[in-house]
Amino acid sequence: MSLKNIQEDVDKWISQWKVGYFEPFEALACMMEETGEVSREINHMFGPKKKKSTEEKKDLADELADTIFTICCIANPLGIDLDEAWKRMLDKFNTRDKERLERK
Amino acid sequence: MSLKNIQEDVDKWISQWKVGYFEPFEALACMMEETGEVSREINHMFGPKKKKSTEEKKDLADELADTIFTICCIANPLGIDLDEAWKRMLDKFNTRDKERLERK
Amino acid sequence: MSLKNIQEDVDKWISQWKVGYFEPFEALACMMEETGEVSREINHMFGPKKKKSTEEKKDLADELADTIFTICCIANPLGIDLDEAWKRMLDKFNTRDKERLERK
Amino acid sequence: MSLKNIQEDVDKWISQWKVGYFEPFEALACMMEETGEVSREINHMFGPKKKKSTEEKKDLADELADTIFTICCIANPLGIDLDEAWKRMLDKFNTRDKERLERK
Repeated sequence: MSLKNIQEDVDKWISQWKVGYFEPFEALACMMEETGEVSREINHMFGPKKKKSTEEKKDLADELADTIFTICCIANPLGIDLDEAWKRMLDKFNTRDKERLERK
Repeated sequence: MSLKNIQEDVDKWISQWKVGYFEPFEALACMMEETGEVSREINHMFGPKKKKSTEEKKDLADELADTIFTICCIANPLGIDLDEAWKRMLDKFNTRDKERLERK
Repeated sequence: MSLKNIQEDVDKWISQWKVGYFEPFEALACMMEETGEVSREINHMFGPKKKKSTEEKKDLADELADTIFTICCIANPLGIDLDEAWKRMLDKFNTRDKERLERK
Repeated sequence: MSLKNIQEDVDKWISQWKVGYFEPFEALACMMEETGEVSREINHMFGPKKKKSTEEKKDLADELADTIFTICCIANPLGIDLDEAWKRMLDKFNTRDKERLERK
């Protein structure tokens, strides 16, 4: 019951505006914008210039949250239940991928 | 208290393997792989070929969940609390962006 | 006069099909798919599993070429001249960024 | 002989700096950043806000050129010949994909 709350937060925010949800391709472009900003932050923190700091960790955290927001903007108008998909993923891990890697 | 559970699911899965978390740039490349797969699904569902179906909605849902997994793989080893970042994002929305769009 | 030929190759290929160019958002989704495949190849070659080989270098090269193809699929129907943009970029480098980095 | 010139432009620019080419994962992150900026421009031009203009077309062209630059930054240090890969792609089109779509 975890991603449900997240999806509801997004829905509450979006549903107050006249413009509403974007079309799938537009929402996808937003997701790519945010993924690009995550990349920029990781380049800042760990790239050749390396100016790692608490401030930058917060900036990266913010971009990751923004990306999750755009994921919900794709999922919500399509009626996608992310908790269900998350559970399916964990089930797949625990069956198909159970012996894939070397254990500790 | 929503994304915390999600981050813990990821940590439980990763922590059983010897290989552990990837480096930030490697985890970022995984996030881009998944974003690419989200794009492929959206192209299948809504692109010129348009063969929308229940099966494809499930595939898209799965790719979105996979992307959230990779986001946690970036956040967890850096000690990033996604619930905190999510709250900061909502706060920003409710102050800075309060009057940005036309209301219903 | 370099990217012009590339753009013409793409135009020759696309113009023989009834479906023609995709809409900008659809072409962008294709570009994201290809960027995702570049990521997968780089993960294969340089990631934790590291099975670098000549075959993989060819695969990465192919994905990079595919990405350039999708870039032309965005540029062409909008009448974007990539050689002009390339020249603008080099000019910007040679003025704005002239002293940005430490020289050899 | 088209992408060769482009790759040489990039090499001439990079080779004057002490920092040189980035590592593959870092260069990939740059490519993702630029793909994100292409997304932002396409959202501006064709998204719900739609403020299409000559200026924006130029901005999109610039981001596409920047992305091609980052592609060369991945290809060059690995000794990847993009013209060869481009030719392989066209050959594949003209054999495997020859009858894939409906002709005009």
